[in-house]
Amino acid sequence: MKYRKEHDTMGEVSVPADKFWGAQTERSRNNFKIGPESSMPHEIIEAFAVLKKAAAFTNADLGVLPTAKRDMIAKVCDEILEGKLDDQFPLVIWQTGSGTQSNMNVNEVISNKAHVNNGGVLGELSEVHPNDDVNKSQSSNDTFPTAMHIAAYKKVVEHTIPAVEKLRDTLEKKSGEFEKVVKIGRTHLMDATPLTLGQEFSGYVAQLNFSLKAIKNTLPHLSELALGGTAVGTGLNTPRGYSEKVADYITQFTGHPFITAENKFEALAAHDAIVETHGALKQLAVSLYKIAQDIRMLASGPRSGIGEIFIPENEPGSSIMPGKVNPTQNEALTMVCAQVLGNDTTISFAGTQGNYELNVFKPVMAFNFLQSAQLLGDACNSFNEHCAIGIEANEPRIKELVEKSLMLVTALNTHIGYENAAKIAKTAHKNGTTLKEEAINLGLVTAEQFDEWVRPEKMV
Amino acid sequence: MKYRKEHDTMGEVSVPADKFWGAQTERSRNNFKIGPESSMPHEIIEAFAVLKKAAAFTNADLGVLPTAKRDMIAKVCDEILEGKLDDQFPLVIWQTGSGTQSNMNVNEVISNKAHVNNGGVLGELSEVHPNDDVNKSQSSNDTFPTAMHIAAYKKVVEHTIPAVEKLRDTLEKKSGEFEKVVKIGRTHLMDATPLTLGQEFSGYVAQLNFSLKAIKNTLPHLSELALGGTAVGTGLNTPRGYSEKVADYITQFTGHPFITAENKFEALAAHDAIVETHGALKQLAVSLYKIAQDIRMLASGPRSGIGEIFIPENEPGSSIMPGKVNPTQNEALTMVCAQVLGNDTTISFAGTQGNYELNVFKPVMAFNFLQSAQLLGDACNSFNEHCAIGIEANEPRIKELVEKSLMLVTALNTHIGYENAAKIAKTAHKNGTTLKEEAINLGLVTAEQFDEWVRPEKMV
Amino acid sequence: MKYRKEHDTMGEVSVPADKFWGAQTERSRNNFKIGPESSMPHEIIEAFAVLKKAAAFTNADLGVLPTAKRDMIAKVCDEILEGKLDDQFPLVIWQTGSGTQSNMNVNEVISNKAHVNNGGVLGELSEVHPNDDVNKSQSSNDTFPTAMHIAAYKKVVEHTIPAVEKLRDTLEKKSGEFEKVVKIGRTHLMDATPLTLGQEFSGYVAQLNFSLKAIKNTLPHLSELALGGTAVGTGLNTPRGYSEKVADYITQFTGHPFITAENKFEALAAHDAIVETHGALKQLAVSLYKIAQDIRMLASGPRSGIGEIFIPENEPGSSIMPGKVNPTQNEALTMVCAQVLGNDTTISFAGTQGNYELNVFKPVMAFNFLQSAQLLGDACNSFNEHCAIGIEANEPRIKELVEKSLMLVTALNTHIGYENAAKIAKTAHKNGTTLKEEAINLGLVTAEQFDEWVRPEKMV
Amino acid sequence: MKYRKEHDTMGEVSVPADKFWGAQTERSRNNFKIGPESSMPHEIIEAFAVLKKAAAFTNADLGVLPTAKRDMIAKVCDEILEGKLDDQFPLVIWQTGSGTQSNMNVNEVISNKAHVNNGGVLGELSEVHPNDDVNKSQSSNDTFPTAMHIAAYKKVVEHTIPAVEKLRDTLEKKSGEFEKVVKIGRTHLMDATPLTLGQEFSGYVAQLNFSLKAIKNTLPHLSELALGGTAVGTGLNTPRGYSEKVADYITQFTGHPFITAENKFEALAAHDAIVETHGALKQLAVSLYKIAQDIRMLASGPRSGIGEIFIPENEPGSSIMPGKVNPTQNEALTMVCAQVLGNDTTISFAGTQGNYELNVFKPVMAFNFLQSAQLLGDACNSFNEHCAIGIEANEPRIKELVEKSLMLVTALNTHIGYENAAKIAKTAHKNGTTLKEEAINLGLVTAEQFDEWVRPEKMV
Repeated sequence: MKYRKEHDTMGEVSVPADKFWGAQTERSRNNFKIGPESSMPHEIIEAFAVLKKAAAFTNADLGVLPTAKRDMIAKVCDEILEGKLDDQFPLVIWQTGSGTQSNMNVNEVISNKAHVNNGGVLGELSEVHPNDDVNKSQSSNDTFPTAMHIAAYKKVVEHTIPAVEKLRDTLEKKSGEFEKVVKIGRTHLMDATPLTLGQEFSGYVAQLNFSLKAIKNTLPHLSELALGGTAVGTGLNTPRGYSEKVADYITQFTGHPFITAENKFEALAAHDAIVETHGALKQLAVSLYKIAQDIRMLASGPRSGIGEIFIPENEPGSSIMPGKVNPTQNEALTMVCAQVLGNDTTISFAGTQGNYELNVFKPVMAFNFLQSAQLLGDACNSFNEHCAIGIEANEPRIKELVEKSLMLVTALNTHIGYENAAKIAKTAHKNGTTLKEEAINLGLVTAEQFDEWVRPEKMV
Repeated sequence: MKYRKEHDTMGEVSVPADKFWGAQTERSRNNFKIGPESSMPHEIIEAFAVLKKAAAFTNADLGVLPTAKRDMIAKVCDEILEGKLDDQFPLVIWQTGSGTQSNMNVNEVISNKAHVNNGGVLGELSEVHPNDDVNKSQSSNDTFPTAMHIAAYKKVVEHTIPAVEKLRDTLEKKSGEFEKVVKIGRTHLMDATPLTLGQEFSGYVAQLNFSLKAIKNTLPHLSELALGGTAVGTGLNTPRGYSEKVADYITQFTGHPFITAENKFEALAAHDAIVETHGALKQLAVSLYKIAQDIRMLASGPRSGIGEIFIPENEPGSSIMPGKVNPTQNEALTMVCAQVLGNDTTISFAGTQGNYELNVFKPVMAFNFLQSAQLLGDACNSFNEHCAIGIEANEPRIKELVEKSLMLVTALNTHIGYENAAKIAKTAHKNGTTLKEEAINLGLVTAEQFDEWVRPEKMV
Repeated sequence: MKYRKEHDTMGEVSVPADKFWGAQTERSRNNFKIGPESSMPHEIIEAFAVLKKAAAFTNADLGVLPTAKRDMIAKVCDEILEGKLDDQFPLVIWQTGSGTQSNMNVNEVISNKAHVNNGGVLGELSEVHPNDDVNKSQSSNDTFPTAMHIAAYKKVVEHTIPAVEKLRDTLEKKSGEFEKVVKIGRTHLMDATPLTLGQEFSGYVAQLNFSLKAIKNTLPHLSELALGGTAVGTGLNTPRGYSEKVADYITQFTGHPFITAENKFEALAAHDAIVETHGALKQLAVSLYKIAQDIRMLASGPRSGIGEIFIPENEPGSSIMPGKVNPTQNEALTMVCAQVLGNDTTISFAGTQGNYELNVFKPVMAFNFLQSAQLLGDACNSFNEHCAIGIEANEPRIKELVEKSLMLVTALNTHIGYENAAKIAKTAHKNGTTLKEEAINLGLVTAEQFDEWVRPEKMV
Repeated sequence: MKYRKEHDTMGEVSVPADKFWGAQTERSRNNFKIGPESSMPHEIIEAFAVLKKAAAFTNADLGVLPTAKRDMIAKVCDEILEGKLDDQFPLVIWQTGSGTQSNMNVNEVISNKAHVNNGGVLGELSEVHPNDDVNKSQSSNDTFPTAMHIAAYKKVVEHTIPAVEKLRDTLEKKSGEFEKVVKIGRTHLMDATPLTLGQEFSGYVAQLNFSLKAIKNTLPHLSELALGGTAVGTGLNTPRGYSEKVADYITQFTGHPFITAENKFEALAAHDAIVETHGALKQLAVSLYKIAQDIRMLASGPRSGIGEIFIPENEPGSSIMPGKVNPTQNEALTMVCAQVLGNDTTISFAGTQGNYELNVFKPVMAFNFLQSAQLLGDACNSFNEHCAIGIEANEPRIKELVEKSLMLVTALNTHIGYENAAKIAKTAHKNGTTLKEEAINLGLVTAEQFDEWVRPEKMV
């Protein structure tokens, strides 16, 4: 491989000759060989492109950057957003905890690519300086959290929420379809009084609605941007009016209602907004787990399980047991939920560890957040399309189970009291008989009364 | 000890002769010797008293309970709330996961005490039946989650939030007091550009304000009550209008705006409201950790640490090192935060494990929630009173540190560029000299320019 | 209440007149009103009594404490161990993170009680000084971690392990009883090839054996005691030979093989031994969860679930559904497991947060550890006695399910290949017929071959 | 893109014409679009290659597979291990929880590639059947956990442990270098009695030694292989002697001492070995966190922090503050620790969720385990090379801090008692004077006594 020389305030570094990055990126690449290359989430790089462009426009508007430089910077930012420079961001999550080196990676790529765009040659000094121009009115300490919020907000609003809503809509439709299917209830895994399959599914819909509401409640905090705080939150080296204007440009470039953070010290030193929204994603994972678990239990069998519903058969289930079909979408979804629960531990831990003016767990927080939001969205889409949409009631099986249940006896409580009703159920259980037989045998009700009072469809 | 015989649907049980509880409580007491006795949180028992009274009033209003029975039930509920029956609730958290046995404990105590209040003798059949009267229109499956929500809501609103607000107010006051105290900033634990101590504290205030908002966002979900769902959510055996009316009575008896849950199936089978609000308490713990950690680091020393602030000396710090004073309130608070993070893991795990119509991790969720809300409130009060209120700036020390800092060089960026500024800082660091000396030596600025441009109080 | 004056290096304090504790305990009591009083685990107080006695004997042996003082100290330690002074330890977990105040509580109680034992009057100066005599050759920083290890080791070895072994023995016995009961296997909750119920239970036995081994692997680390390190690990103010001798006395007084920690700096500044053993307790919780969950699923029904085993009926299961019986012991056990998982998060977090020469999360670590070890032991005992011992196979149901299973087709793989076997299973599933019918219809095997090849009892 | 037709027991599927995978892989690729493609860890694929080869040899030895087929299978396995087929494994973690589809991916690739190796054309029926030959005597249910154990064992033994040992050796060397450097101790972040910097570092060495021992304690469990259990643990369809022999081949092919699991039911239905070893990795993360945190605090400054050590300057620290150098390696390492703590939550959760004969959270457990083991090893190597090796003591600063400390007063305890010593320290603190001055002023010691008794180098 061919190399060229680049320098920074620490001296010279050899950089692959065909790459746009510079000395600081290369130092980081060599100093942090931790995990696979390029693991810094691409969403963060894209968010940087947005904010660098917004900063350039703001700086130009406020008279501290020539418009020519603004346009050179903006052009490279657009190239990043179009995916033309995807191989220029080799750094990993496990670098400095402020993400400084990824900020510099972006600065260096913009600086060098602008120079090349302008007809220059890689290795020459660019007319757009990575620190003095691209990073003008910025610090890693305010750009990285800004990139975190932009990336997180976009992912949740554009990906996670729509996927959850789609699944919620499917389950709501199923709840309607199943509204007349009377089935046995189960509490403690034990037979209980009946309900409809539609009612059971309505609980899932309610869970997802609550989760959606919880996520949306957290968005205002996530929409606050640190940009303008620079190194420690004071906004040193920024022109007057910068913070508000740069947030407006970001809003304009993303279509999302970002605002400047009211308190920049909090925005650099703590990442409670990430903790907060991820807490809501964790709640969503809790909800989805219950739903996916229930559905696979209801579909269990086909002959020795519950078997009250059918789910789609998508692939052969076993490499040794011929003809086996498994609830694989449920398994993928519940594994995602398990991941999100762990990610929440990581994010909460990281959230506690800010010191003074900075929290230096930014990349690990961003990584876990974006992974959760992506996987939850993907898994909801997959589960919706390959499982939920195809759920059908196994009505004969449902009918069979409800008819032999003993818990219909509960309907007699208000007529003959809890203790007499218990006596009927226990006797039937012991003798393997029906409630009606024993109710009459014990002289507690007549056959007519039984038929009138114990009607599953009236109990739901 | 003397015993009397009590019976339930399973037969006879010997119960301590002087206790109001009955057969089912006694069975549970014997079957679940796990951890210390009476560990079921008292707040849950009190919430049961509220809801039993509300159910009795509602049942009477709707014509399914005689007013005489209503009044007998209500009288015992009031006695529970007055603390007169504290020794009548011996059961533990680690019982059935629906809390059925604690529901029955309350039912039995009300039944038997009502009989005694009415002139009867313990051991005789009460005129108020524990199942048919006290538990009328109810099931453990809807009463226990109702008690969880009542207890959780009250604890958060009456205890946690006011304590956080008090601490927030103190920190806000301190932020004002310190607004002119210019100090060195620190990022990555390393010297950075200056800010005021008041700005530093304003970040803490912002964190607590965000936490408060996050907690409050979750309260509407927590205000929804399961009562009226009975066994599986269908409301079997409840009179028409029951759910709304019983929620109104609970609102009236507690002074908090409870409403009946829109979807009772969700309210029994999932406890996402508990997951949601505890998620916000966990965020509060994350915020408090940062604050308490910062304050003890700022106060570290007295001679070999940071030493920028003084915190109150409350007790001798060491049993071996004479004269030592430690940041003990910070330690108590951070330990509480560590507990809350663990409690969140427990609650999230438990939240995933509902099956079909019921989640059977109710008591462990209630226990962890109430512990977190209590400890956070207590620790905020303690930290506020014994630490925050007494914080003082160590101005001579702060001044000393800011003056010798190298990061003031950042103010020169906009005048001489990042690379020249870096050269000055590095030279001064290497030579152990001041920025000004090296700035002039290197011929980059004049003494007059340096004095005009590098002024900490202008950098904040 | 009457008070007397006590003093410490900070001045005078009013202490309840009839209590043996002194000024520092009282300061802590007033300064840390966090959670219920006296929450510092009693096991820690007892461990302190052991180590204070051991220190007194060692100090006397090494000539730095008169034997008269040794005996006065030892006598009060014995009184603590006999439970005579249980109301003398009012402090909470949420105090200073070194547990200094609980160390001083013990020092003060020993000092004052010794004086009273010697005929003195409370409030007079004791001839046994709390710091100079009772705490001689000690610091909170080495006594508290020593108490943590003594208490943790004892609890695990004397309580948790025996309880797990008892449950393991019961499950092993059941595995033997069920060794001929051929049942349908289930993977992905779906019907699979058969195994015996005894084999299924043997998996539980193996899990518990692995957990026991994992716990025992950690005990050597836990047996290392910090005592002798004093304030920062250097052993300042201890006589030569002190560390080894005091560990020997503790071994003698407890009957457990404690040794002095090889590196005292680690022993004060980190609590990785607690993290390590609790990690093994967490593994035990993971194992127990699987076991308890399986057993309740196997016992589900009675008519609409799996119903392959019977578990004991211990109490009425529902306050509204007459005759219902629930797997309540399983629920208590799984709730305990959920608690232990959360406690592990707390302990791991706390374990990371040591700084320099001390970790100041000692009380919260001790509390969570002892709670886990106690609850796991109690819950195993309860589950063993009230559930495992009484488990019975429901052989007719098991036979019914195995006979109609489609997964017996797997036995044909080696005769007719996976794809032909799959065809048989799928056809039978679609037509609701038996494997044999379709195997013959499809012309793939003869009736004789089928009967010879497909024999569940040969497949296990 | 061109496609060919492949089929499985469910029918035909279009597969990219140039890929060796077959119908089932393609179904999975289409059905599980969750997260990035090919996320199933490559270590798992490699472990599959080892075990498929071992199974082929064992099957041949035991007479159930022709040696020609054995050799065709083995050849492709070797190609996989040589990295020649890296683009043939497109599946994701988030698939079926048994990993069946990745097992089939390997089976299909081996089958088709063997055919091509044999001169055949892709799309023709291979002479090596994916199920009947490649998967002979196997099931996903025993191969996937076997692959998990092989991959996990190798990663920990070949990567994680050596990296930790290297760091431990460096810290041990530093401990020796610093053995005479007397410095102030710090407890509660407050000044305490002195120790040497070498002693401080010896605590880190002890932590890593304990972590290494803890990890090694878990390896025997991890060395047990499920292979031979097939579908549910009974070993259906395996020839006699298969389990032991296949483990021997795996030992031979890997050089690690694998054995067949004593209880196959446990080995399929639970993954406590993964939980156990990851628990030890989590302990390592706890240790590393303390170490990395201490080192960055000791290095903090350069002028307004602790500044007792120097760490290497590897890259410019700030994009806005010129000349700033940050503890970036410490930050990367602590972020890795935060990740591992979260991964432990995921793994523990997943570990609890086995049902009956199978745990269907295998891929998520494998992913998190391998990520932790890789990152911990990488981060230790990086931290060692770029930070630990270059640590130097800042002796002038250390000397300055120790001399002005007040905690040297502790040396007087044994001469004048704790209370008099406290008086000296408090007076000096209040007056901003030295201990010696106040000790003499208060008439408690003479200057000669002070100089003889208070000697930091004697206190360590």
